[in-house]
Amino acid sequence: MASEKYLEKLLEDFKNGKIDKDRILQELKRLPYQDLNFAKLDHHRKLRRGQGEVVFCQGKDLSHLLPILTEFKNRGEKVLATRMKKEVYEEIKDSLADASYYPVSGILIMGKFPEPVYNSLILVITAGTSDISVAEEALLTSRFYGHKSEYLYDVGIAGVHRLLDHIELLDSASVIIAVAGMEGALPALVGGLVSCPVIAVPTSVGYGASFKGLAPLLTMLNSCVPGLSVVNIDNGFGAGYLASLIAEKNK
Amino acid sequence: MASEKYLEKLLEDFKNGKIDKDRILQELKRLPYQDLNFAKLDHHRKLRRGQGEVVFCQGKDLSHLLPILTEFKNRGEKVLATRMKKEVYEEIKDSLADASYYPVSGILIMGKFPEPVYNSLILVITAGTSDISVAEEALLTSRFYGHKSEYLYDVGIAGVHRLLDHIELLDSASVIIAVAGMEGALPALVGGLVSCPVIAVPTSVGYGASFKGLAPLLTMLNSCVPGLSVVNIDNGFGAGYLASLIAEKNK
Amino acid sequence: MASEKYLEKLLEDFKNGKIDKDRILQELKRLPYQDLNFAKLDHHRKLRRGQGEVVFCQGKDLSHLLPILTEFKNRGEKVLATRMKKEVYEEIKDSLADASYYPVSGILIMGKFPEPVYNSLILVITAGTSDISVAEEALLTSRFYGHKSEYLYDVGIAGVHRLLDHIELLDSASVIIAVAGMEGALPALVGGLVSCPVIAVPTSVGYGASFKGLAPLLTMLNSCVPGLSVVNIDNGFGAGYLASLIAEKNK
Amino acid sequence: MASEKYLEKLLEDFKNGKIDKDRILQELKRLPYQDLNFAKLDHHRKLRRGQGEVVFCQGKDLSHLLPILTEFKNRGEKVLATRMKKEVYEEIKDSLADASYYPVSGILIMGKFPEPVYNSLILVITAGTSDISVAEEALLTSRFYGHKSEYLYDVGIAGVHRLLDHIELLDSASVIIAVAGMEGALPALVGGLVSCPVIAVPTSVGYGASFKGLAPLLTMLNSCVPGLSVVNIDNGFGAGYLASLIAEKNK
Amino acid sequence: MASEKYLEKLLEDFKNGKIDKDRILQELKRLPYQDLNFAKLDHHRKLRRGQGEVVFCQGKDLSHLLPILTEFKNRGEKVLATRMKKEVYEEIKDSLADASYYPVSGILIMGKFPEPVYNSLILVITAGTSDISVAEEALLTSRFYGHKSEYLYDVGIAGVHRLLDHIELLDSASVIIAVAGMEGALPALVGGLVSCPVIAVPTSVGYGASFKGLAPLLTMLNSCVPGLSVVNIDNGFGAGYLASLIAEKNK
Amino acid sequence: MASEKYLEKLLEDFKNGKIDKDRILQELKRLPYQDLNFAKLDHHRKLRRGQGEVVFCQGKDLSHLLPILTEFKNRGEKVLATRMKKEVYEEIKDSLADASYYPVSGILIMGKFPEPVYNSLILVITAGTSDISVAEEALLTSRFYGHKSEYLYDVGIAGVHRLLDHIELLDSASVIIAVAGMEGALPALVGGLVSCPVIAVPTSVGYGASFKGLAPLLTMLNSCVPGLSVVNIDNGFGAGYLASLIAEKNK
Amino acid sequence: MASEKYLEKLLEDFKNGKIDKDRILQELKRLPYQDLNFAKLDHHRKLRRGQGEVVFCQGKDLSHLLPILTEFKNRGEKVLATRMKKEVYEEIKDSLADASYYPVSGILIMGKFPEPVYNSLILVITAGTSDISVAEEALLTSRFYGHKSEYLYDVGIAGVHRLLDHIELLDSASVIIAVAGMEGALPALVGGLVSCPVIAVPTSVGYGASFKGLAPLLTMLNSCVPGLSVVNIDNGFGAGYLASLIAEKNK
Amino acid sequence: MASEKYLEKLLEDFKNGKIDKDRILQELKRLPYQDLNFAKLDHHRKLRRGQGEVVFCQGKDLSHLLPILTEFKNRGEKVLATRMKKEVYEEIKDSLADASYYPVSGILIMGKFPEPVYNSLILVITAGTSDISVAEEALLTSRFYGHKSEYLYDVGIAGVHRLLDHIELLDSASVIIAVAGMEGALPALVGGLVSCPVIAVPTSVGYGASFKGLAPLLTMLNSCVPGLSVVNIDNGFGAGYLASLIAEKNK
Repeated sequence: MASEKYLEKLLEDFKNGKIDKDRILQELKRLPYQDLNFAKLDHHRKLRRGQGEVVFCQGKDLSHLLPILTEFKNRGEKVLATRMKKEVYEEIKDSLADASYYPVSGILIMGKFPEPVYNSLILVITAGTSDISVAEEALLTSRFYGHKSEYLYDVGIAGVHRLLDHIELLDSASVIIAVAGMEGALPALVGGLVSCPVIAVPTSVGYGASFKGLAPLLTMLNSCVPGLSVVNIDNGFGAGYLASLIAEKNK
Repeated sequence: MASEKYLEKLLEDFKNGKIDKDRILQELKRLPYQDLNFAKLDHHRKLRRGQGEVVFCQGKDLSHLLPILTEFKNRGEKVLATRMKKEVYEEIKDSLADASYYPVSGILIMGKFPEPVYNSLILVITAGTSDISVAEEALLTSRFYGHKSEYLYDVGIAGVHRLLDHIELLDSASVIIAVAGMEGALPALVGGLVSCPVIAVPTSVGYGASFKGLAPLLTMLNSCVPGLSVVNIDNGFGAGYLASLIAEKNK
Repeated sequence: MASEKYLEKLLEDFKNGKIDKDRILQELKRLPYQDLNFAKLDHHRKLRRGQGEVVFCQGKDLSHLLPILTEFKNRGEKVLATRMKKEVYEEIKDSLADASYYPVSGILIMGKFPEPVYNSLILVITAGTSDISVAEEALLTSRFYGHKSEYLYDVGIAGVHRLLDHIELLDSASVIIAVAGMEGALPALVGGLVSCPVIAVPTSVGYGASFKGLAPLLTMLNSCVPGLSVVNIDNGFGAGYLASLIAEKNK
Repeated sequence: MASEKYLEKLLEDFKNGKIDKDRILQELKRLPYQDLNFAKLDHHRKLRRGQGEVVFCQGKDLSHLLPILTEFKNRGEKVLATRMKKEVYEEIKDSLADASYYPVSGILIMGKFPEPVYNSLILVITAGTSDISVAEEALLTSRFYGHKSEYLYDVGIAGVHRLLDHIELLDSASVIIAVAGMEGALPALVGGLVSCPVIAVPTSVGYGASFKGLAPLLTMLNSCVPGLSVVNIDNGFGAGYLASLIAEKNK
Repeated sequence: MASEKYLEKLLEDFKNGKIDKDRILQELKRLPYQDLNFAKLDHHRKLRRGQGEVVFCQGKDLSHLLPILTEFKNRGEKVLATRMKKEVYEEIKDSLADASYYPVSGILIMGKFPEPVYNSLILVITAGTSDISVAEEALLTSRFYGHKSEYLYDVGIAGVHRLLDHIELLDSASVIIAVAGMEGALPALVGGLVSCPVIAVPTSVGYGASFKGLAPLLTMLNSCVPGLSVVNIDNGFGAGYLASLIAEKNK
Repeated sequence: MASEKYLEKLLEDFKNGKIDKDRILQELKRLPYQDLNFAKLDHHRKLRRGQGEVVFCQGKDLSHLLPILTEFKNRGEKVLATRMKKEVYEEIKDSLADASYYPVSGILIMGKFPEPVYNSLILVITAGTSDISVAEEALLTSRFYGHKSEYLYDVGIAGVHRLLDHIELLDSASVIIAVAGMEGALPALVGGLVSCPVIAVPTSVGYGASFKGLAPLLTMLNSCVPGLSVVNIDNGFGAGYLASLIAEKNK
Repeated sequence: MASEKYLEKLLEDFKNGKIDKDRILQELKRLPYQDLNFAKLDHHRKLRRGQGEVVFCQGKDLSHLLPILTEFKNRGEKVLATRMKKEVYEEIKDSLADASYYPVSGILIMGKFPEPVYNSLILVITAGTSDISVAEEALLTSRFYGHKSEYLYDVGIAGVHRLLDHIELLDSASVIIAVAGMEGALPALVGGLVSCPVIAVPTSVGYGASFKGLAPLLTMLNSCVPGLSVVNIDNGFGAGYLASLIAEKNK
Repeated sequence: MASEKYLEKLLEDFKNGKIDKDRILQELKRLPYQDLNFAKLDHHRKLRRGQGEVVFCQGKDLSHLLPILTEFKNRGEKVLATRMKKEVYEEIKDSLADASYYPVSGILIMGKFPEPVYNSLILVITAGTSDISVAEEALLTSRFYGHKSEYLYDVGIAGVHRLLDHIELLDSASVIIAVAGMEGALPALVGGLVSCPVIAVPTSVGYGASFKGLAPLLTMLNSCVPGLSVVNIDNGFGAGYLASLIAEKNK
């Protein structure tokens, strides 16, 4: 792994005549450019690494997952594993004794959640109870990145007073993640009530003309409420990660 | 026009020997079956006729429209003409001296609106000001059919308090027509607040991923609020007509 | 639960000096606004509550459903449970001895259907036999809300005379729920024959280019027959509920 | 133009030694294969040619159209030109003195319509008056190919009795072309009443969720009525041509 | 079953005073109109009935199918059952001893195929071997209705010479049913070679952007070859039935 | 406008006997609830108001726009008007002497841009030059809300080195707005290089299968790069407003 | 199998009087035209045959596959079988002792890969690890046709430096096959870096709004980078085959 | 512009003590990485530059175009300008005296076409005459890059013999660009006849269910003929450029 140290050494070797010009030119060219720019390119990865690694389990075999997770365990890294099916967890739980599994969202955490290091509140809300699996993925992701995060579930548009009852909680948030399937109107509704950024997460929960989340996705994109943006259908992790980036600045 | 009276006469002529069996059989077969069932089949048209005729102007040339409207005028019929462009109205207004034209919705009324004959209130609401052209089509249609109809515009989801300020008006309606483009969430929002049927009208107002009204259409269909149904994009006439049918029963 | 009574008491306590101005202001602000407006907001819920509770079973685990249903049973509430799979019913039927299960639609009723309290007829018709599961959901929903509801199945457009044979029945209805998959033309056909509101329900029954109900949905939305509106694909409950709202006014 | 005669000559020249083996092999290989199979490949073109030429005008400049039409005129050929805009006709009418132009469908006929040579009836029906431009294209196409064709317009599903009044006419047809926009249900309705093939033509006439003819197209494809097939949106020529092929067999 | 005879009797009873005017009016109104027009309405069903009954098995339980099939068997009717899964056949084959089952297409025939009563040839062709299940449904359907039908499989556009090798067979057909998935170009290709009507059947065979048959469906609709029409995706029965109607006229 | 002061006065009047219980109850019920909660509900509007008003000009007539803008001018309010066509500006420029118009984006500013009050950088980048009109809308919106905002145009994926040349600028941003049409890959590319939130704006710039911005919209939603969210097609204002909300926290 | 030799013999027999003119004409007509043009038509098949046969296993039963493969084995042909499920391989592996199976892509090779006969490099790259199954299909296909092919996996847009690290490898390729799901931006990114043709393969890997590969497909089609073309979703074989055709020219 | 020379100088200055370690490290980090890799990154641009510049005119104002073109003219560069409308050309032709304009495709060439420098043939074929504008864009693009290119127009699938007549021409091509709208089957048809790569270009030419080129696009993607890939709808330039890249290798 090349690094700034290695670069300094190269230059010194060259100055001291240990290597000649051709050699140092050749080395410099072979140096992966990201090593030269290491600090720049990986600013955003630092955040992730600071808290540990992320492993996406969907579509991966146990035979791939177990070695990865075991290696991280042996290195003592914190790990956030997403979309791990219950059957997979059952197979590996004995190998990963200290891991916590959250069956609703399929999240597995190796190591403990960090103490919150940011004062700002990330609030995760859902329109219905069926949206909770996606919401919990967002919630636990943001906690994994050191945030104080709370949730408020089942406050969809069908009973607007349920949402209005919690207007002080909404108002105290730095970022709100609004998760909704079916008609997907919750993010626009809450976006009209608060002054913080709202991250809208459409879910594939719905029937008939929901078309696996297309309906709430379009709803959220077309909202005339400013201050709102959208991530992919069911993308709880993406919403939790983005909320962490935004809220981190408010420390 | 055959009618039950004509049928009775036929039977009497047959009994009296004025016509023979072949002749009456032939007549019976030629009798348009709807004449036999006249009352049944045309119950629903009576409503329309009772108030006058409806003429859809969209896509029709002036050369088709003027003779139709002139004939109705000469017969003294009330007429509701929809989607008449301003240019068309300018051409024909001198020929139809007593007609009233509503440029926002492109509605022309020949004759006066009837006095309301139903006590129940039809309320037409819109999410934004751009939805008013569709809403006015619904409003005037329902008034044409003898209803007391009111409106409440620009109460969309982006400022939910604007809607909540008028909750008593919402509550006093027998049917609500909720017109919305963009994200189309208004019908679901109002459906969660009231106990009367809500007719949702998506409009083609919107930008980008609205896809000419597809987005609000899907939103409205996927609403989890019961008591709500949907008509075609921009179909203000259809909503006004249906609301009239429903409210008429509450007389 | 705050209520108008509680508000009156607050005011009297304040007048009598039992509480001071700061205290009453604090109380007034904490009063959930819906309590002040309780009667308004929940008008529409009364209808539902008057008849009992509704439980949507689709996508819910037995572990969630059984406690909910058991609690309602213990409270003696009437319950309409929709989209309950046969396997689920088999598991719980011993715990809910007096419940009736309708396997075609997956409806479970706890308690008896109420005697009809409305004279007006809700008629549920289908284009084919495959649409009956959705139609039965609509039918039983409307009966649950106290309506006299009848049905007429398999009268689709392929044999228009089958429908015309029952024109008197159609004519006697206050609301018609027309359920159709495939080409979805039944609602428009019946809408042309009757004068009452028609609620169109597209179903996902179909092959090839039906695209899981998209084809009949578009058919129904584009009908030029006025007096017709549409609910989501397969949404029998929504149609039954809306029909109940409309027919209720005709008592 | 090579032909069977030319082939025979080649063989005789070869037998007589006028040409050698290499030469005849070379000739045989160069013979466009379709010449060998001329009769086979062009059976279907004979029909068209027998009646004259077809020219599709849509998207073609006047500078392309006029020479083509003039050449045909000079040769004395009958020509069916489709989708010719009125402006184009105005420009060329003086050059084509004996041509007849039908402005509703944009059809131009050079030469007269042939006397019908087939007894079987092709019947063209439409759901509404806005579908007539497409229907007339079908009607005139079939007459151009020597058929006795009639029409019945504005018999859509909204007033089923209008269609039923003409059941004897429907019954006397060999092929029915059913043209409909909006909800597109007419072909299925008529297909349920008759025993002849029905060619369904969706039109782009409609509003909102018609999506330029997609809605009636899907309706027609999903019809459960057998004996029905579909051509492209607004494709009146295609329907008229296909109907001619079918009806021709009934001579 | 009312009939013209019954009508005559009614009239005589009325003339003879056996029944009075009110009674005959009541009777006339109750007479299902289709009884008056019985012969007309059911012309097209005769074809089907003449050959026996059709039963669509897809989506139907064994508990529904077996009684239907048994009843037909007891009545000695010929039956064409479509889309019967192998498992279903295994369950019922002992009850229906003389039935023949075709596993590729899932067709079951009770009774024998009729001797062909028409001279004209119906030819069923496919682009690939995966399209054969749909093609066989079309082939057997047309044989069930008394046609002489042949097939030519795996002659898709990727090897155009395979199709050209059989140009005489193509040329001898009265109707061609061209079945294709993937890019769906076969019907247009064959339509350019022959002079008979071509019925295009898109299949859901394909990968990736085939979108379950949408790609070949659009291909077929957009073909510039006249003489071609399209049925629903995988609708072999519909194509076979329509081909029978067309070819029947050529007897 | 009711306020807390008015509420206090009501209570005092009641205590002092100036009004009775019925009267105060009536008053309390009529008090718009948002007045009680005024501070809460309008937090987010304060931001907007603090900087002046926003007027969306698209689809509005000059006859609507001019009075609104004139009123704001007379009140001395700052105004951000979006999507104003050049023709409209030409008509009104004399009436609004001190306004600045930006023809590329169609933005009109009445009053001056505020001095930046936030240190954090909002960076607006585009893939191509055709995306600049949308980007400028975002840029000017964020400046209107007091932000220091810069831009970097034409750094799309086709020449990745153009983007990499500016990695330090990218790295110094607090929020990046990435605007792209065609294949829409820029936001994902930049999201992989930086650690700040990225707001992706698809544009309708493109040809063929871009389908008016659907292609880049899907690209952006499906990006596997975390830290990225999406607004509606061409929604520069929405992106600029959201970026302002996020960056404001970093003051 | 007719051939040029047979044609010569026919001509000689004719010249010698062994057959008469009618007979030779009949023979000439029956000669499959492709036999005359054999060399032309099958140029492209030579490539495939030169290396052996290709068998597409998807959707084929074991009962169809085994005889085909066994026959090829007995003939000693090289075979490339694609999309063979593991279960199928398990069933047949004993019968095909020398075959090699690649479980990631489901490729089975009977016989050995040929030694590369072309110097030009085909490089297969993927955006993520989930795209490898499609990439391996492309890689092995090109090796089967005699190419020297290498791969570079997991170099997607989220970490652009991973790709840039291998720019020399990219630069040395004659053709690049770029495989990507999700947002599908890799082909455009690499197309901006290299000067050789890039074949883009969208995969169905993705979540939510990927819509089974539609999102990356549109991304790839809309790329503004020239030198790039697209094959069907998941079509690794097609990409490998096309790359072989292109690279073959560079021998 | 940094270069390898500058890097060498830096190293020597460092060795000679002219700059210290911190300074050289700082310099090295600021060195734009593409300067180090300059030759690599712009390999692909060389091809384009070698022949001159490309200017896409679509969506650009005359005020932008004229300066760009004038500058190139003054520099004496060859320019290929695409999608220039006739009106634009009329405005600028006097300023660009030696330019050639091709109105069918909207191509403008400044300077002469180069003499072909490659022997291999690029053949551009179209299904119909309406596809020629796109085809000519491809043809002229490839000639601009020094290729010998020919064309064959109007050989679509409706008359397969027209294509087969030219099989020797098809066979002599190194790359074929097949342009087709409507059903889009030409590329698959020709792909089955030849052994060279085929680049398929869907066009937006079509009616009804063509949906602006979506239908031929899907057709081309789903072709089962290997050796075929697809570019964006109407993207003649992209096809011509890619064909040039492929054919260039065959010099």
